This record gives sequence, structure tokens and C-alpha cells, in this order.
Amino acid sequence: MERLGRHGERMKRLRRLARRRESGLVVVDGRRIVEDLHRWSVPLEELYLEETLALSPAGTRLAAAAHGAWVVADGALEGIAPTRHPQGVLAVVTEPEAVSWTAGRGPGVVLDRVQDPGNVGAVVRCAAALGARAVFLTPGCADPFAPAAVRGSAGAVFRLVPCTGVPAVEAAAAVREAGGEVWAAAPGGVPLEAWTPRDPSLLLLGSEGQGLDPALVEAADGTVTIPLERGVESLNVAVAAGILLQRYRQLHGT
Amino acid sequence: MERLGRHGERMKRLRRLARRRESGLVVVDGRRIVEDLHRWSVPLEELYLEETLALSPAGTRLAAAAHGAWVVADGALEGIAPTRHPQGVLAVVTEPEAVSWTAGRGPGVVLDRVQDPGNVGAVVRCAAALGARAVFLTPGCADPFAPAAVRGSAGAVFRLVPCTGVPAVEAAAAVREAGGEVWAAAPGGVPLEAWTPRDPSLLLLGSEGQGLDPALVEAADGTVTIPLERGVESLNVAVAAGILLQRYRQLHGT
Repeated sequence: MERLGRHGERMKRLRRLARRRESGLVVVDGRRIVEDLHRWSVPLEELYLEETLALSPAGTRLAAAAHGAWVVADGALEGIAPTRHPQGVLAVVTEPEAVSWTAGRGPGVVLDRVQDPGNVGAVVRCAAALGARAVFLTPGCADPFAPAAVRGSAGAVFRLVPCTGVPAVEAAAAVREAGGEVWAAAPGGVPLEAWTPRDPSLLLLGSEGQGLDPALVEAADGTVTIPLERGVESLNVAVAAGILLQRYRQLHGT
Repeated sequence: MERLGRHGERMKRLRRLARRRESGLVVVDGRRIVEDLHRWSVPLEELYLEETLALSPAGTRLAAAAHGAWVVADGALEGIAPTRHPQGVLAVVTEPEAVSWTAGRGPGVVLDRVQDPGNVGAVVRCAAALGARAVFLTPGCADPFAPAAVRGSAGAVFRLVPCTGVPAVEAAAAVREAGGEVWAAAPGGVPLEAWTPRDPSLLLLGSEGQGLDPALVEAADGTVTIPLERGVESLNVAVAAGILLQRYRQLHGT
């Protein structure tokens, strides 16, 4: 493992990559996620380890698995990625290719203009955990491979790769073609307990600030609402996704 | 409204407050939350507005409601609180007093050593939205009034004030005294669909890294598990709280 100073060209490039100034490469920080990626056979193109971790058995194991590995001083990775605790390790991996998609059993999730990368990541994580088949992102959504999104997803963006290239209307058409329905999560709809979506269904979720695009709500087959205590306006979008997907599983056993 | 420079004493103090170096005062950022606090009759002790917002009708309205209001240049509030978009407004409010608590109808949530302030806030938000009666925090949890926690809670920490002074064992004893149960959310327990907690019940949730303190799991009356897709280890703690609290409501109609 080559040793790097804090201010060399390679570190500058890493800072640039972490800001997603070069497409096609993704910076992943956090020991647990990097270890998971390796476990899921995602190739670690480049690995940067702080000294203490590099000298540990875990660090040696990761370094052996990476295509290239470099050591930096303890603390030198702080501030490169936006998370507060990079835990001594950053990896550079190739952005997964856009996945193709066909409607089939299991729910799909459409995120509309969710700008916070942590929220985009959290929804993908929850969708992967609860059996969603696909996550679609409208153009106003945060980059699902920004470091904060990867972190928020606990790496799930590499397992359930968001379909950024499929427009929501196309996904909706395909789901209907397959005999399914399109549901908007918004106030004033069918209460959760009475919600009986067909399988497959597409679930539309908006950002907390703006809500769903009214055109999307209009185009949906129905609206579903999670009843909230008086005075509370909304749930975090990932919590809403979790509750709706869990209800879906309860009905369809997916 | 007095005009402030970027580097005066008052701005330095605000930076210090945002890092929670003085107890008893809380810095709240974000226009929506500050407006909500005002709507909920939380006194705005100090209000700092960036110029553009200060000149708008919304800014004037907020300033009139605050005990003291100051104007700063556009952009001057960036970086004072940890969130990326302070949206032109910061307020200083008094930390709510510790609430007293008695077991009664409705679930309680115990968060065990959840260190991420955003996650602590998100759980409180979700607990407030879904009818929880109280949220207890063990000593290892993040400060629920740190700016990132307030922001993650969308202000809910002022509506469902966390019981930081009540030890989890005491809350558990009180719930049992009231005829209720204590449930740990952890792997290997009763699957969600078969979970039938009594009302009141206390729900124990751990951090994602460390999970629940084994002593707490041991002391619980049972363990409940949200089944996850193969290969997925855990859910975000706020998503888990949301799914469990929704199931609780489904059973008890709280």
C-alpha cells in the first residue's frame, strides 16, 4: 500500500469525486458499508485507509480485496465525504449501470423531487429491506450516488439500483399494462387501514416541502393517506415509505 | 430590527449556542420549523433573519412575534447551524422543561444509545405523528435539542418532549405496574404480523451500529422483529419505529 500525503493530486481527485464532479465513479465512506459492498461482490476500484485501520486485520483484508489501496494519516479522510465520521475508510467504486425494468410482482416506488440525498438513500434502503421491486426517481431528485445518499441507504443503492432513466409515466403505464395500479401517497385519500392496492402497484411519494406534483396525483388511480395525530403535518418520506410498503406486504405477502 | 455584521459578538454567541455550549437555549433553523414553533405558541426569544426574508411579509410577521429580532446579510446564517439550508432564518428558543410522565394508554418508545442526532429527531417526529405517549432516551443518545435533532424532528421535540430524566428501567416498571408490557425490537423475535402487544406497551429500539443493550433485551417481556428481505440487516431506526407504531395503532386504535 502506497502512502499518500494530505495534499497530493490523488487526494485532490478524491475530493472532486466526492462532490460527484466526475460521473461514473462513486465515493463510498464508512467501514460497514465498504465491507458490505465487498461482501456483495461490488469491485472496490480504489481504497483509501487511514493508518490505524490499515494496520488492523480488517484493514488488511479490505486492502487485499481492492484493485488499488493507499494509506493516509489518521484523520486525513475527514471532510472529504460529507458524513461526519468516515471511520477511516473511503472506497471508489463504479456507478452501477442503469437497470432495465419490467413490471412484475411486488411494489414499485416513485420518488418525486426528493432533494435531500439522505432521504433518497433512506427510501432506497427501506424499499430494498421491505421487498420493493424498483425505485424510480423523477428528475428533481437528489443524485442517488452522492456520498450522503449512499450513506443514507447503508449501501442499498448498489443492491436495488434506482431506475433514473425510466420516466414515472412510463413506469405507471407498464404497471397498468401488467394489471396493476398507481397510488399517490398524499393527504385526503383512502386511510391506510382501508387501502387494498392490487399487486403490482406503483407508489408515488413526494418531497416533504413540496409534496407530490399535482399532475402525478391526478394521473394516479387513487390516493392513500397515513392518518396522523392532530397538528402533525407529515412524516419523513422514508418512514412513510416503510409504513406503506409494510402494509403492502401484509396484503400480498411479497 | 437591528442590523448585525457577520463577525460581531452576537453572531459569535449564536455559533456557540448552535454547538450547544450553553444549556437551556436551543437554536432552531429552517423557515418551516420556526413558523411551526410560533404556531404552537413556543416563544421565539431571539430571531435572526437574512435580509431578503426580513423584508418579506412572512419575515415581518415572524419578527413581530419574536421577543428580539435582528437582520443579517443574505448568506450570513450559512454554517452556523449544521444543516445545509438554513433558509434565511434562525431562532433561539428556551429548551422545554423535562416533562413528568405517568403510564397510560398509548405506546412509549425507548431509544437506546442512538448517537445520530438526525435519527433521534426522526424517531421523535414519527412518534409524535403516530400517537406515542412518550419517548425516553438512554444516556448514550444524542442531545434531542441539538440543531440537527430539532431539524430531523421537524420541530416535534417541542411537542413530544423526550423524557431524558426517566431511566428506561423506571419507565418499564411503571408500564408493567399499569398492566402493560415491554417489547424489544431486535432480530429473532415474534414476527411483526403476529405481534400483539398489550396497551400500554413500551417499545425498546437500539442504534443501528450497536443494536439494543443485551441487558435491555433480557429485561423485556418479549422481542418483536420486522421481517426483512434476505441479505438486508437492518432498517433505519425511525423507519422501524414507524412500522411498529403503525402496527400498534392498528391493534389498539390509539
